[in-house]
Parts: sequence; C-alpha cells; structure tokens
Amino acid sequence: MANRFASDVYARRLERAAELTREAEFDAIVVGTGPDFRYLTGSEAETFERLTALVIPAAGAARVVTARLELASLRDSAIGDLGIEIADWVDGEDPYALALAGLGDDPRLAVSDALPALHLIPLAERTAVPPRLATPVLRELRMIKDDAELDALRRAGAAIDRVHARMAEFLKPGRTEAEVAADIDAAIRAEGHDLAEFIIVGSGPNGADPHHEHSERVIGADDIVVIDIGGPVQPGYNSDSTRTYCFGEPRADIAEAYAALERAQAAAVAAVRPGVTAESIDAAARDLLVDAGLGDRFIHRTGHGIGLSVHEEPYIVAGNTDVLREGMAFSVEPGVYFGGDWGARIEDIVIVTADGCEPVNTRPHSLVVLPA
Amino acid sequence: MANRFASDVYARRLERAAELTREAEFDAIVVGTGPDFRYLTGSEAETFERLTALVIPAAGAARVVTARLELASLRDSAIGDLGIEIADWVDGEDPYALALAGLGDDPRLAVSDALPALHLIPLAERTAVPPRLATPVLRELRMIKDDAELDALRRAGAAIDRVHARMAEFLKPGRTEAEVAADIDAAIRAEGHDLAEFIIVGSGPNGADPHHEHSERVIGADDIVVIDIGGPVQPGYNSDSTRTYCFGEPRADIAEAYAALERAQAAAVAAVRPGVTAESIDAAARDLLVDAGLGDRFIHRTGHGIGLSVHEEPYIVAGNTDVLREGMAFSVEPGVYFGGDWGARIEDIVIVTADGCEPVNTRPHSLVVLPA
Repeated sequence: MANRFASDVYARRLERAAELTREAEFDAIVVGTGPDFRYLTGSEAETFERLTALVIPAAGAARVVTARLELASLRDSAIGDLGIEIADWVDGEDPYALALAGLGDDPRLAVSDALPALHLIPLAERTAVPPRLATPVLRELRMIKDDAELDALRRAGAAIDRVHARMAEFLKPGRTEAEVAADIDAAIRAEGHDLAEFIIVGSGPNGADPHHEHSERVIGADDIVVIDIGGPVQPGYNSDSTRTYCFGEPRADIAEAYAALERAQAAAVAAVRPGVTAESIDAAARDLLVDAGLGDRFIHRTGHGIGLSVHEEPYIVAGNTDVLREGMAFSVEPGVYFGGDWGARIEDIVIVTADGCEPVNTRPHSLVVLPA
Repeated sequence: MANRFASDVYARRLERAAELTREAEFDAIVVGTGPDFRYLTGSEAETFERLTALVIPAAGAARVVTARLELASLRDSAIGDLGIEIADWVDGEDPYALALAGLGDDPRLAVSDALPALHLIPLAERTAVPPRLATPVLRELRMIKDDAELDALRRAGAAIDRVHARMAEFLKPGRTEAEVAADIDAAIRAEGHDLAEFIIVGSGPNGADPHHEHSERVIGADDIVVIDIGGPVQPGYNSDSTRTYCFGEPRADIAEAYAALERAQAAAVAAVRPGVTAESIDAAARDLLVDAGLGDRFIHRTGHGIGLSVHEEPYIVAGNTDVLREGMAFSVEPGVYFGGDWGARIEDIVIVTADGCEPVNTRPHSLVVLPA
C-alpha cells in the first residue's frame, strides 16, 4: 500500500475543511503537523520547534508555511500534486507573521488541538482575538470515515486479529510479560503493521491496571492475562483489539465476572447504530455491569474513535451526547478490574453502518484458554 | 540503568523550578507530560486527550493533576517518593479548574512549550491574563546538565560511536537505504539504546536533503552516504552523531568540499567555551565555509542542545545571543548540500567544560572509506 491515498481524496478534504471553517465562523484554521496535517495533506511530516502548518482560510486558497529545511519532507505528500502554495522561511525569520499573512487584521483563528504552546502562544500574541480550537472543523471531518479509510481500518482489524490468533505461540506461563511482548511486537509487524504502537501484556494483578504496559513479571499458570495491542497499517490507520487469556479453568468468581463483561461488551456493540448518542453506548455496557454488581470495577470509558490516531473522536463516554452517524469508527472495550488480583477487557473496533455496526475484529470474545 | 535518577535529583530540580518561577514573576508554571515532565518528576507518562500536568506555584507545594486512570503510570516516578500531592479527576470533571485550584484569581500562568492547544486553550479561557511560555524557567533548568545527566550523555555518545564503528557491516553498495537502516536499527539497540529515535541513510542525491530519512534507493559504489543516527539510553538521554561515508577515492571536488567541511566542524568545536555566544559557534563554522565558497551549501543551523529531547536549548544558530555556560550540551553539525548530487555532514555532541568543551563522540571526522 502507498503511504497516502490518491490526491483527489485530499482535494475533497481540503474543500470540505474550508466549508466547515466558514460554517464555524473562523477566518482561518491553522493545522500543525501530526494526524490532522496528515489527514488533510497525506504528509507524514513531524516537526516540533520549527513551525510547519497548513493554513486554511475561510476564503481563498490553503497555504503551507514551513521551514525551508522541511521542504523536501513535504514532497511525498499531496501538497505538490494539488499545487498548494508553500511559504517557506529560514531560521531567524518570523514564521507566525507568515502564517497570518493575508488573513487581514485580527483574524478569528482556530488551531488544531495538537498545536504546541510553543507555536500557539506566539500566534496568539499576534492576534487580538484569542485563538480557539479548530475541533468543530477537524473532528467533523475526521470522525466520518470515507470508503478508503474504512477499507484501511478493516485491513488493520484483520491484521491484529491474525496476531491474536497466534497468541498460543507467545503467551505461556513461566515467560515474562516483556518476553511475550517482544514476540507480539514481531508478530504485529509480520502481520502487516508498520510498527507496534502499543502492547499491553497485563498478567495477574497487572491486568487490574488498564494502562499497564508490560514488565519483567513472570506469568503464572493461574494468571488471567489481558492482551491489548495495535498499530498502524498503511496509509496510517490503526488497529486496536483486546482479548483476555488464561491457561486452564478459571476460578468461579472470575468466570462469573467475565461472563458479565462479555454480555456488557455484546450489549454495547448491539446498541450501536446511527441516531443514538455516544454516551448511550457507554451506558449499554455500564448498566449491565452495574446490574451484575460490577459497576465500580469498570473504571474507564467504553471506547474511543480510531483512525489516523489511536484515540480520536468520538469518545464513547458518559456526557458525550454526540449522535452516532454512519461512517464513524470506534472501540467498544469495557473492562473489569480487581486491584491486586486480576482484570479483564474485551475490545473490538466497530464501524457504524446504515442500520447498526460492523465489527472489524472477529476473534471469539470468550476468555481464551491457552495450553499451560 | 534505572529508568530514572534518585529522588533527591528531582527534589532539587523542583525546588529550583519554583525559584525560577518566582524570578520570572509567574504565579505558577503548568508542565504537561513529555520531556519537561520527565525532567522534573522522572515519570515517562505520556498523555494526550486527558490532562496530566505538574503545577509548580511560585509559593507553596507542587501538585500533579491527572486522570484517575493514569494514577498507576505515575507510580514509577519520583512523585510518590517525594510526597507530591496528586489531584485526580475522572471523565466528566473539569481538570483545568483542578489545575488552577489554589492559585488565586487571574494567576499569571506559564506553560511548558509542548502543552497542546487542546489543554492550553481551556486553561487560557479560565484566566484573565493570557498564559505565557514557561521557557525561561524550563530552559534554564534543562540547559545546564548536572553530573548524572552528563554521565548519561557520555554513555549515549559511546553507544552511538560503537554503531558507527560497525558501519562496514551494514553499509555496502547494492543494498537499499532501507536495508542498511534496518541493520543500523538493530545495532543501535544492541549497543545499549532503548530504541533508534532516527536513522538517516542519505545516499547520493538523498544526502543533499538534510531531513531525508531512508528509502528504497539502491546505494551505488560511487555514492557519498550521510549516516545520522541516535536514540535514547536510560534514563532517557539521547545520542546523535553523523558521519559521512564512501566506497573508494572520492571525486576531487567532493574531497575538496569535504576537507573544508571538516575544518569548519573542527573550528566550531574549537570555539566552544563558557562566555561566548551560541551564534558565535554557528559563525565559526559558517565563516570558514563561506571563505571556501560553500556558504550557500550550508543551509541549516550548526547545532541544537540535546538531553531528554533530541532537539532542545541551546540552539546554535545565527541570532541566538545566549551565552554558553559550563554543563551545556549540544551538537556541532555543519553540512554541505549539492542538490541532486551529494551531501555531507559531520556531527558530534559536545559538553561545555570550564575552559572549552568535551566531545562525547570520538570517531574520526574524515570521509570514511568503506570496502565496496
């Protein structure tokens, strides 16, 4: 796969971004490098201390501001194909004035959410109106995936499913979490990812920490093990899937709690369709766990959008009344956590369809029993 | 090596940060996760959409604000050892109000330069005085390395020198840049780094682009090849060293330009000592290249500070009148670039000593001739 889509994909996105910039009543949005920049231009450029940014005015053509040094890194992108003007600067010049050129006095600016303070504060000092977040523009664009993106997410899902399918090769009692993680890392690449973006191997009590990565802990034959893994496939779309493993018949209390978790995950997936709120999906999982007496064991939100970023809009969380629409893609990943003892999580990525959803991960949801 | 220094190192840094916050007449600095956060707490926590930040008030004790979900990721840091108060929040609560708690009305805030707009704008909306960059505090702290940091930089330098010493194993005509880069990647890890942070294999015309990484280009026997590599060693300090290679007697014009580059790099290193400006080091390299008729071939600054970040203060660039002080560490890396044909760069990290500097990289500076 190429590292970006055809240039007309970016032309459409840029046009739509300008429309949304007008609708939001901004005079321009300023998009620093990172996933938003890649979404709009196909460029993987990453800069920090030297400003590279895409400026999309409400009226007029988009422009890119970049350090002359970075010009070559933009060549691989759609910027050249689309004839987008590049205003370059050299060390000692003022890139912020360059970014604001042509926007008139005191423009109403909005900036991408990843733009660092290092660049935002100098921009803010040059405008009378405090800059705002361009989230209304960029989240609207990026939340609804087009067909090419959905295809990429399906390929990513199939790739990570192949890694879970091979888990018996890697995950064995007596090995350390780090040893298992190293093998998973290789498998993630071998199965079609650019790299392993994250590898959680949470055995026994470590499984009770949702953000544990992996450690030198030796995995025991009685452990429950949470494996949460993913990474990007070309052109940059991420996989993310969790399954929970054990090496024999689990304790009765664990089997019971796990069964409730499995029902909760299924209930949340079943609730996904256009027209319902993001928080209703969270509630579908949570209500079931509360009813099972496990409400206080489910200590995080139910999911997050996914695409060029592993975490993006829409967030599936209480308080998010955003309405689901066809083409959204997000994780459904309830978990239960028993501090000091064990934890479990089940996670699929789902795509919202016209009348429900399509999970891109299809491995069995039960507690996976591996040979000891 | 442990992933952080002893806790008293962080206690001293926090105390000094509070002093500098008072001197800069800020009421508090807000430090998001990333290198500044790791510098001050030893924590490698990385968060994006959920605010985790260290708040250091001018008066009173430092506090950490974090999502409850991230609490465990802070446990490995000095935060627990030092008894720093942690104010945690759950999805749906207002982390920005929590960050501002106890700072009085309209505090004069300063923020770390990596804090994303996503967090800076909500903070700015809750304060009457626009936040400023905490650079005066954080750069002052991080620019002057203590003994433990200098030791880490020396270990990093020795590690990357061992990789350059093995270059004949990897770099051969007929291989692609990507194949060479994969071998270098493994060697960087094998020689003591956590990972390869960047690998530039710029062969022939690709060497003329300072930011080229590597490609499927097949390296030719007549190519000049720029190898610029580095990464972190525990606890997080980076290496960064460039050497330029060829496979036989270079063309006369290349040999001549390279000889000028070698003199320029040596002149810049010789100019480093406390009391001179950062820009004077840039000028030392540049003047020599200008005299050799190569001024327009040297299209970037001479160097950048290095530590927990690969690029940090002080920047060795025209216009930077900062005065060098003992304990600073930065790259000296002039280059010459002939678009479409070839390029070369020589880069060492140097530490400013009481009366000069100590290069941490000691490989020969000449154009390295490898077997074809």
